Amino acid sequence: MFQSRNIKLVIAYDGTNYHGWQRQAEGFDSVQARIEDVLVRVLGHPLAINGAGRTDAGVHAQGQVANFRTPNMSIPLAGLRMAVNSRLPADILVRSVVAVPDDFHASRSAVGKTYSYQIHVAPDRRTDLAGRIYRYNRPLDIEPMRLAAMRLAGEHDFRGFASSAEQRQDTVRTIFRCEAAELDDRIAITVKGDGFLYNMVRNIVGALVEIGRGHWGPDRIDKIFASRDRSDAGPTAPPDGLTLVCVHYDRRELV
Amino acid sequence: MFQSRNIKLVIAYDGTNYHGWQRQAEGFDSVQARIEDVLVRVLGHPLAINGAGRTDAGVHAQGQVANFRTPNMSIPLAGLRMAVNSRLPADILVRSVVAVPDDFHASRSAVGKTYSYQIHVAPDRRTDLAGRIYRYNRPLDIEPMRLAAMRLAGEHDFRGFASSAEQRQDTVRTIFRCEAAELDDRIAITVKGDGFLYNMVRNIVGALVEIGRGHWGPDRIDKIFASRDRSDAGPTAPPDGLTLVCVHYDRRELV
Repeated sequence: MFQSRNIKLVIAYDGTNYHGWQRQAEGFDSVQARIEDVLVRVLGHPLAINGAGRTDAGVHAQGQVANFRTPNMSIPLAGLRMAVNSRLPADILVRSVVAVPDDFHASRSAVGKTYSYQIHVAPDRRTDLAGRIYRYNRPLDIEPMRLAAMRLAGEHDFRGFASSAEQRQDTVRTIFRCEAAELDDRIAITVKGDGFLYNMVRNIVGALVEIGRGHWGPDRIDKIFASRDRSDAGPTAPPDGLTLVCVHYDRRELV
Repeated sequence: MFQSRNIKLVIAYDGTNYHGWQRQAEGFDSVQARIEDVLVRVLGHPLAINGAGRTDAGVHAQGQVANFRTPNMSIPLAGLRMAVNSRLPADILVRSVVAVPDDFHASRSAVGKTYSYQIHVAPDRRTDLAGRIYRYNRPLDIEPMRLAAMRLAGEHDFRGFASSAEQRQDTVRTIFRCEAAELDDRIAITVKGDGFLYNMVRNIVGALVEIGRGHWGPDRIDKIFASRDRSDAGPTAPPDGLTLVCVHYDRRELV
């Protein structure tokens, strides 16, 4: 009988220099291709890794998850982790390598994800944060942003917050947590949900920024839910500020 | 009579994506070329900017200084700053634009520079610091590094800490301040001097790391001073951790 192990990876990366997670046509660098290429070299057999979330170009991750199968039953996983990390560039790190049950599938087994979005509110950019934060050069009032974030929590039809390229018919999702917090000249927006439509977090942030600068009141959120119209939400926030913090596989984490 | 103004720029940049400060052959991106190209577009006349320090590829700056001359006597400098910054990429910022006396020359008028070098002491890299810090994966003992840093301060012949590519005959320099400080998993090395030989800060850091990991004692510094032999110093630390913090034009700052 053909034997194989199912291996789960938890991966951090800075997406600034990649055309997103997913393998692209030749000549376009992606995080998936970098990791697959290294795994193939280290394990010596063809393989494909399956990621939990297809982060866009410029989006970062602290806890992306992927899995793949290997017929190699004996390679020590701590050694595999070290071998892979020593061959990956400085902006990609495999945080953990563990064997998981056969039925684990990084995207189909996922029950939710948590994203974080970082805004730097300042007249001048910080060059040491280039690509890693969204710099906003006018004041943002955190209080209406907090009120708007509370309205986003719960089960809603997020059609109005999805890119027009979103193909899925079912656009109802549950947001378990949506918070805006301020520390010095930074605002962090955290969103935990059971699923996300295309560009949904960046469009939520775009709306929160419009509310924070006083262009709309917090009740704008209800209007976008009601109209389901993308043009009622704000501009899409840039990818730089967005990080996939973790992928959830246990419903008990969804609170 | 031909009139012109002498303009001083203070510039911050993340050097990760550049082949250093200095303009290179066509096809090699440099910070100087980016700024010159934008100034030419905004001011509408040919010009060359003269930088205080030629930082290498991958080295960063918080306070690089440059100057250039313009026959345009009327452009408001605050407006020029905004116009230039709006055309520069996110990893370059012109922090200030001021008119200075005719005899100011960014490199010839400089009397000293301060550099900072950041080390991240951890078994795993942090992908969000890729290119911006030197990650060292074994423990470093800060106390011998502090003692060695004290020995570096003062007037010495730094020949042994210079790259073999260094052409200058006079290799005596004065270090006014050399400190190693630890905060959580970071070590910051600050060096303020009246001048620096080629790769001098990175070679000082390389030696301090060898001392911090216990390979040498702090008195190794004296041996390198005595032998003037590059091969007695440690490996050159990578550019990622190095930042040109400021350029000094006032001798009263050299303490």
